[in-house]
Amino acid sequence: MKHTVSVLVQNKPGVLARTAGLFSRRGYNIESLTVGVTENEAISRMTIVVAGDDTVVEQVTKQLNKLIEVIKVSDLTKESYVDRELVLIKVTADSSNRAEIMQIVNIFRARIVDVAPKSLIIEVTGDQGKLDALVGMLKQFGVKEIVRTGTLALGRGPKVIQSAKD
Amino acid sequence: MKHTVSVLVQNKPGVLARTAGLFSRRGYNIESLTVGVTENEAISRMTIVVAGDDTVVEQVTKQLNKLIEVIKVSDLTKESYVDRELVLIKVTADSSNRAEIMQIVNIFRARIVDVAPKSLIIEVTGDQGKLDALVGMLKQFGVKEIVRTGTLALGRGPKVIQSAKD
Repeated sequence: MKHTVSVLVQNKPGVLARTAGLFSRRGYNIESLTVGVTENEAISRMTIVVAGDDTVVEQVTKQLNKLIEVIKVSDLTKESYVDRELVLIKVTADSSNRAEIMQIVNIFRARIVDVAPKSLIIEVTGDQGKLDALVGMLKQFGVKEIVRTGTLALGRGPKVIQSAKD
Repeated sequence: MKHTVSVLVQNKPGVLARTAGLFSRRGYNIESLTVGVTENEAISRMTIVVAGDDTVVEQVTKQLNKLIEVIKVSDLTKESYVDRELVLIKVTADSSNRAEIMQIVNIFRARIVDVAPKSLIIEVTGDQGKLDALVGMLKQFGVKEIVRTGTLALGRGPKVIQSAKD
């Protein structure tokens, strides 16, 4: 089972290295890790997707809470949440198959963000199932490059994850 | 000046920790770092945005190339490229201002991905200028939570960054 964990951390140099080091030393199976600043520039928010049962998530939470820069750890999987990933895909395309690719792009509510005589760049957001399905459909044309962000997540509804001080 | 650097790395445990550690030890000013698997599951692709002049980028490239897991480092800023970031924003909203927020969402070609009686979650992709502008417009309603991925980038046109072996 996968767990999606949100972690508020102080936005200080070295915090990413320490968090990533904690996971690699302990051998946890991290599927993705993203980090970005929040509405408060002094605080960053990480989204970590970890494979494992409840025990693994409990251990991860305990380890994270030992880091001095960690403000709050929250397992989103316990409630209802929205998760999204962004992917850019460069596909081989020319005038003979561009229309067909555009059809697929529309069905997946993706967007074409660059066109060249022999290639296209497609931007798409969604959960992993949708993104895998789109990449699968595009393989027949020739996928030249893929770059993806890893999963972002927010709990549904008005509830907010914040530090105790706020 | 900002530089956007693409790094192909072997998809092995510890590579994120080592890369992030390299930057924090040397004191480089990293604006964002994202990592995800590519079309080849054995290879991940990092996008690193670093502030500094050409000398800084040269040093970063040299340091990265010393890591055994690094396959290829490429400074996208030298050519034309597409850069995008994904952000999820939770905003305070009720029936009195939901229509106004929806107008702003449409102008920015963003999407509403969750609605509750007193809040909304908005999904938006774009470059940093667009995202900052949208967040600025939403502040009047009350921004409750923001989570962002950091910048992704691909070079425009058919050119591909790949390992020498491919």
